[in-house]
Amino acid sequence: MDNKTLAELLVEVRAKRPLIHHITNYVTVNDCANATICIGASPVMAHARDEVAEMVSMAGALVLNIGTLDDAQVDSMLIAGAKANGLGLPIILDPVGAGATRLRTATAYRLINDLDIAVVKGNAAEIAVLAGAEGNIKGVESYGISRDPLEVAKALAKKMGLVVAISGATDIVTDGRRALLIDNGHPLMGKVSGTGCMAASIIGSFCAVSRDYVTASAAGFAAFGLAGEKAASHCRGPASFKAALMDEIYGLTPESLIKEARVREA
Amino acid sequence: MDNKTLAELLVEVRAKRPLIHHITNYVTVNDCANATICIGASPVMAHARDEVAEMVSMAGALVLNIGTLDDAQVDSMLIAGAKANGLGLPIILDPVGAGATRLRTATAYRLINDLDIAVVKGNAAEIAVLAGAEGNIKGVESYGISRDPLEVAKALAKKMGLVVAISGATDIVTDGRRALLIDNGHPLMGKVSGTGCMAASIIGSFCAVSRDYVTASAAGFAAFGLAGEKAASHCRGPASFKAALMDEIYGLTPESLIKEARVREA
Amino acid sequence: MDNKTLAELLVEVRAKRPLIHHITNYVTVNDCANATICIGASPVMAHARDEVAEMVSMAGALVLNIGTLDDAQVDSMLIAGAKANGLGLPIILDPVGAGATRLRTATAYRLINDLDIAVVKGNAAEIAVLAGAEGNIKGVESYGISRDPLEVAKALAKKMGLVVAISGATDIVTDGRRALLIDNGHPLMGKVSGTGCMAASIIGSFCAVSRDYVTASAAGFAAFGLAGEKAASHCRGPASFKAALMDEIYGLTPESLIKEARVREA
Repeated sequence: MDNKTLAELLVEVRAKRPLIHHITNYVTVNDCANATICIGASPVMAHARDEVAEMVSMAGALVLNIGTLDDAQVDSMLIAGAKANGLGLPIILDPVGAGATRLRTATAYRLINDLDIAVVKGNAAEIAVLAGAEGNIKGVESYGISRDPLEVAKALAKKMGLVVAISGATDIVTDGRRALLIDNGHPLMGKVSGTGCMAASIIGSFCAVSRDYVTASAAGFAAFGLAGEKAASHCRGPASFKAALMDEIYGLTPESLIKEARVREA
Repeated sequence: MDNKTLAELLVEVRAKRPLIHHITNYVTVNDCANATICIGASPVMAHARDEVAEMVSMAGALVLNIGTLDDAQVDSMLIAGAKANGLGLPIILDPVGAGATRLRTATAYRLINDLDIAVVKGNAAEIAVLAGAEGNIKGVESYGISRDPLEVAKALAKKMGLVVAISGATDIVTDGRRALLIDNGHPLMGKVSGTGCMAASIIGSFCAVSRDYVTASAAGFAAFGLAGEKAASHCRGPASFKAALMDEIYGLTPESLIKEARVREA
Repeated sequence: MDNKTLAELLVEVRAKRPLIHHITNYVTVNDCANATICIGASPVMAHARDEVAEMVSMAGALVLNIGTLDDAQVDSMLIAGAKANGLGLPIILDPVGAGATRLRTATAYRLINDLDIAVVKGNAAEIAVLAGAEGNIKGVESYGISRDPLEVAKALAKKMGLVVAISGATDIVTDGRRALLIDNGHPLMGKVSGTGCMAASIIGSFCAVSRDYVTASAAGFAAFGLAGEKAASHCRGPASFKAALMDEIYGLTPESLIKEARVREA
């Protein structure tokens, strides 16, 4: 993996400023909006069934997050998703809490089956559940899985024909054949609600400017993780870290990505 | 424009601490609540159709924001708005994304037509769309308009019989005859999700203590913009700027408004 | 009250990391999630009627907050609450705005009557309203009550058979017989939207690890208030205070609770 490619994607995001349409949870929606602005794209959140198709028509990517799902929201996701597919726009799915309740697992499957998802991004347990493996999930947090996450990711990617992105100490991105591991990041990212959701927004921003969703997802993880490393050096705890993280996403330079991104082939 | 008038309004907001009832989007609602507290008023958010009329009866102003609208929410806006009109309370409308989708444009028109709106506050493109001019809007952001925004604002104000407030590098406030331009502000305000929404909350707080909605809206823009200028001097990026902005709204003194507000007749 | 007991509870929260299921308002939900993480527990927010019973089955406590209630949400609260009762899990109720509208007062009563609530936590006016006394409430803020809050709290606790927790300059916790007063805290906590909601999340985290809900609630207030005291020493206003507050909750040590908690018998 050449870090120059990642840096060029960041330049592209900031030049094109794609609109990232989110249908997402009400817990971390503000963080998703601000992370999207900070990376250089433009967020919009809209869920009304009468407007989602029209809104997504202006977008460069669609981010679906089931963190606080309900029936009406899932309907809107399906409408927006069908439109995005018709237009060839990438859909990023964050299956928050898949495995925690039947509703979440079933909804994640439904979205993957009914729509053409470009990237499914989750923690190890969520991805394991979708891959049919055992995932230990409590609420929306992963408590580990029983198999090698890279194998699980590859299996899901192949089976569903999409890119799988697993967030963790080492992030994983794979389309079932090629696999990238991203070592950027900081443990404080696990102490802030919504870093997973923010990662999906940033991955969506990169996918909006490149058809190579494996590289785009890796770029998103690397940019986000690198910002986290920098933020950790000037904070006092999770909340000042979160503000610093946003500031560092905003301040991230292509040069810094070239020098400090740690992406390797698996 | 005498800055002493603006300063007196700020003193009044803090003395009376009016309740500002918001029916608003779930993206920036927390920022609206905190901005309202920081300027010296008291926020309440309530959307259930069974309570909005009762809640607005206690309020000094009603802020309606269609940033994440849906049918049920619009119904509640109409109920609360009718009650506010009956009581003579000012309604501030933030037509977020008008022009981006037919639903948003139609809803903004419906609220303006069915209710007696005191102030409609938007970015240049949203206001242009409502005025029947061409506005270039993508998602919820203005990408410029084809006509002079002051003329567009005046035209809409005259046609609808309300005060029009346009946020921008130079903010505009007009009732169609008188027009004020406010030069306070900082570019970082455009890098934070929700500054437009927060401006509406602050304008609502000032409108709750003065029937002169042109002056009150100008006071709101000046106070908010001035806080932004001060915040920009001690931050590292958009997120630390946002926290600093809130702190500076809270710390804003009447003396500072007298010295540093930059409001001029158009 | 021995501060060592409070410190042991904090250690317990961090060791067990209980899942705290919230059905709460969309204004301060992000703050509740982060406060829960910072104290050492694990938050989940879920409101869909098809999943709340399943989600609460994994939880250590259920927090119900009516800050932006509507019919569907109250239905889900009743379903989740019944399940929590069946499992013997503590329910913490935050009756935000009880007394402000008939809907809020009636809903708070309904939840207290239909469910077995462990702790009802509110400001003085909300608790007074529920106790049948006079509470002066405007929106969601208490403007004082006409009777001694300790007497009001005791009366409600006895009548309803639950623990009553009143937040204020001096917090009150009582089951009708025993009563504890907590003197930790800082006035800036009243200048941030959501500190009341966050207190309920923290109390819920402590109640998840102890059946002595009086002590657990006092521990929650003491921990939260002490973090507020520490935060106030390094901030510039309400927003930097809020970030510092979260950081200090995260950094709070058992030793600090032993030394600085100020809990006394009434």
